[in-house]
Amino acid sequence: MDLISARARFEAIQDRICQALGEADNQSFVTDQWSSKLGVGKSRVTASGEVLEKGGVMFSHVKGAALPPAATVKRPQLAGKPFEAMGVSLVIHPHNPYIPTSHANVRLFVADPESDQPTWWVGGGFDLTPYYGFDEDCQHWHQSAKDLCDGFDTKLYPEFKRWCDEYFYLKHRDEPRGIGGLFFDDFNALGFEQSLAFVEAVAQGYLDAYLPIIERRKDMGYGEREKAWQKYRRGRYVEFNLVYDRGTIFGLQSGGRTESILVSMPPEVSWSYCYEPEAGSPEAKLTSYYLQPREWV
Amino acid sequence: MDLISARARFEAIQDRICQALGEADNQSFVTDQWSSKLGVGKSRVTASGEVLEKGGVMFSHVKGAALPPAATVKRPQLAGKPFEAMGVSLVIHPHNPYIPTSHANVRLFVADPESDQPTWWVGGGFDLTPYYGFDEDCQHWHQSAKDLCDGFDTKLYPEFKRWCDEYFYLKHRDEPRGIGGLFFDDFNALGFEQSLAFVEAVAQGYLDAYLPIIERRKDMGYGEREKAWQKYRRGRYVEFNLVYDRGTIFGLQSGGRTESILVSMPPEVSWSYCYEPEAGSPEAKLTSYYLQPREWV
Repeated sequence: MDLISARARFEAIQDRICQALGEADNQSFVTDQWSSKLGVGKSRVTASGEVLEKGGVMFSHVKGAALPPAATVKRPQLAGKPFEAMGVSLVIHPHNPYIPTSHANVRLFVADPESDQPTWWVGGGFDLTPYYGFDEDCQHWHQSAKDLCDGFDTKLYPEFKRWCDEYFYLKHRDEPRGIGGLFFDDFNALGFEQSLAFVEAVAQGYLDAYLPIIERRKDMGYGEREKAWQKYRRGRYVEFNLVYDRGTIFGLQSGGRTESILVSMPPEVSWSYCYEPEAGSPEAKLTSYYLQPREWV
Repeated sequence: MDLISARARFEAIQDRICQALGEADNQSFVTDQWSSKLGVGKSRVTASGEVLEKGGVMFSHVKGAALPPAATVKRPQLAGKPFEAMGVSLVIHPHNPYIPTSHANVRLFVADPESDQPTWWVGGGFDLTPYYGFDEDCQHWHQSAKDLCDGFDTKLYPEFKRWCDEYFYLKHRDEPRGIGGLFFDDFNALGFEQSLAFVEAVAQGYLDAYLPIIERRKDMGYGEREKAWQKYRRGRYVEFNLVYDRGTIFGLQSGGRTESILVSMPPEVSWSYCYEPEAGSPEAKLTSYYLQPREWV
């Protein structure tokens, strides 16, 4: 298992994504290298571009002496073993409320990396959080997800789509975070080389899914009403990430780099007591129609 | 143990606080009664008043068939017993960044209320979260806390002040949430009647501590810079409440009324990657001087 070349492949994923999003935004991402006792990272962030209000595409590579039990629920025999983890995680918050917020993540986990038989798996996925729904965007997003999965195994999309719907769910709101996409973890069924190829395909699939939506929506006009709705709905994003997201909570509790973890927070957010959009409005349709369990392809 | 009259005393606390804050704000709180299978509540909220941008003063009275282990860390023998809990909890977010955000809470917990010997305790406190610091406000806040405690026992203030500093702490920021105040729990040392009287004194002490600060700061001029700083710092408030606050997390996980629990969220919030205020500025002094372990009286 060649972890040095695996790392180069993750760094290349980060480069490709920043290149593509930076072109769409007409502004480059700024790079911030960091290191700590946990490992090293390269945080690439952007703010106030033409299209993106705030965005972060973070690479990190960490090592630890003892795998925490929370990271190994499915593999309790690995708790306490040394481990190595690397990955790319991103959240993109556009200015225009008609462009959804997007999130993607790819990662490789290796337990007992120095042993003869290290245990490894990959995880990740991508999901979309619209403020205003458009059927063609939802269909295109899920079609891109399905196409990339089908290139490896047609069983993957239905499984990873369902997993995504289950994971990105705000129990206290009885509401999904968005319209889903892909989520997978503990995945090694394809073997090491093909799993890394799958992870690369997920990253490329994210761009294939998201960039056309940016293009279609970026010139749509909006005003205070749409911006207020976006800020209100971003509150749900904050609630999910701080209350439920395992990566965020584990990162904060384990002494990860706070600013890199919380780059996912939206730039401007509002909360309003018992706010309900007017019945029949496009805002009400977001929850009544788009944020419902649905097969988009 | 007369829980009916105890409840009346908590409802009276809510009334007095809403009356006093409503007068300071020149606008009444709006009342929202609710009931669920857990119990009943009266949420009193305000928004866009003269002084208050958003505020909620919530009474609730809930009963449960089985005390969750999280509520009884110090009394494991009570886990699984029926229980009854009532209390008032409030968070006040003023418009003016020179007026701090404030929080107060008083509550009574009774385990096994139908038995011959129910176990009961009170808890609560109040704490202050400034955006700009003023020594006289911090001293007045803590002097009010000390005065009310000293009326019962001079040992209480130092203990409850330290507990407050420990509790309202953001580990991932290595930063206290504010300048503290009082925090207590599992408290029954004064006996039932005097404990309720103490809880009433805490509520009155909160008003004695906060209202003069509102008066002193409400006419201070501010502009975009101060508002932007307030919105940025409110992000810390969100982080604390969603990541650490036991009441919030327990409420959301146990199926409490989401809008009443999250009325604590600030109205307008922002996050900005790696933001640092200019060295030597009043904004920088907040963390370098005010948010440091300190005896204010």
